[in-house]
Amino acid sequence: MIIGIPVYDEVDMLDVAGPFEMFDWAGFEIDLLAEQKGPKRFRSKGFTFNVEKTFADARAYDAIWVPGGEIAALAAIIDDPNQTYLKFLVAQAARTPKPMVCSVCEGAMLLAAAGLLDHYHATTHWAFIPCFAERFPDVIVAEGNPRFVLDRNRLTGGGISSGLDEALMLIQLLQGTVAAQKVQQSTQYYPDPPVTSAIPAPPPHCLLPPRGAR
Amino acid sequence: MIIGIPVYDEVDMLDVAGPFEMFDWAGFEIDLLAEQKGPKRFRSKGFTFNVEKTFADARAYDAIWVPGGEIAALAAIIDDPNQTYLKFLVAQAARTPKPMVCSVCEGAMLLAAAGLLDHYHATTHWAFIPCFAERFPDVIVAEGNPRFVLDRNRLTGGGISSGLDEALMLIQLLQGTVAAQKVQQSTQYYPDPPVTSAIPAPPPHCLLPPRGAR
Repeated sequence: MIIGIPVYDEVDMLDVAGPFEMFDWAGFEIDLLAEQKGPKRFRSKGFTFNVEKTFADARAYDAIWVPGGEIAALAAIIDDPNQTYLKFLVAQAARTPKPMVCSVCEGAMLLAAAGLLDHYHATTHWAFIPCFAERFPDVIVAEGNPRFVLDRNRLTGGGISSGLDEALMLIQLLQGTVAAQKVQQSTQYYPDPPVTSAIPAPPPHCLLPPRGAR
Repeated sequence: MIIGIPVYDEVDMLDVAGPFEMFDWAGFEIDLLAEQKGPKRFRSKGFTFNVEKTFADARAYDAIWVPGGEIAALAAIIDDPNQTYLKFLVAQAARTPKPMVCSVCEGAMLLAAAGLLDHYHATTHWAFIPCFAERFPDVIVAEGNPRFVLDRNRLTGGGISSGLDEALMLIQLLQGTVAAQKVQQSTQYYPDPPVTSAIPAPPPHCLLPPRGAR
């Protein structure tokens, strides 16, 4: 299996690193891709990583994994006059055989802006749920902030850490339950948070700026 | 709060990235440090990141976070004739006021090799538990593969993904329960793995090569 992860400056670290770690233990090949090669910044302060493939180097992926990131970075991608990132997503999703088209966290905003979630059930980080109704009304919002939502070949995750559960689900879909269980064992993924809390109510309005407002 | 994460080539990605993400949402400053500056390889294939501080640039840390990694990398650190990494850990742990001294996954092998877990309760990745009895017999092994073990100012985690629970625990210790709950909300850390499995029995012997056998 080969997974493509298109990244950008100010992408969320765990949205990328958590699934990358799990796919790696599953024996998958993983390509980090960006519009341009070179060092990229995670949104976590002071952490840079290196991308060696551009979108032109893309292979035939079994899944495309779209991570979330800073609001300004998402807005820049959505408002890009060339639509480079969104067109890459559309082209990948249009390939035959169809890849799994996945997002985690606010990565769903990018899939939605590319039109790839229209008429699909989907989720995102709890704070971005209002964006679906305001900005992408043809997306069918899954209730209750699930860890991930599978609808045909679309797999969308909730906020940040949801990517771990979602990555295990993708491994299960692509390689079977035993493969996912082995990754669970290798990564000792038997989570047990030391604190409890409730998912907050979402903000009243979409946190993304209006299209073209930057 | 300031956290120091001493890294090395072939360090585990999620051991670093998971806690880094959580500390960042807590508003902590985080320094990645290494013996030498420059690009480092995660053990996950094809992922490099950049380190801008050497051990000489270390600040006064509220916690030192020691990640695990490839067996050969651990053995190289333990067998290093200059003991550069282990001496750094010892020097940090000796500072006043005392920092929290933490490891995740096989990072416990490095703390143990530095003598910093002797007579402390501790844990590590399930596959490295036999190393305590064989190589570091003064470490008191916590039964049952807990997500993390707190003993005075030592906080040791289980395998890889345990670092997320352990990082939340460290945030709770340093900044309080409300701060940890806010990070749980920001990262939507309400995990729910889609598969279930049991932690395997550990291997019969320590996976580290005998000291000096490389």
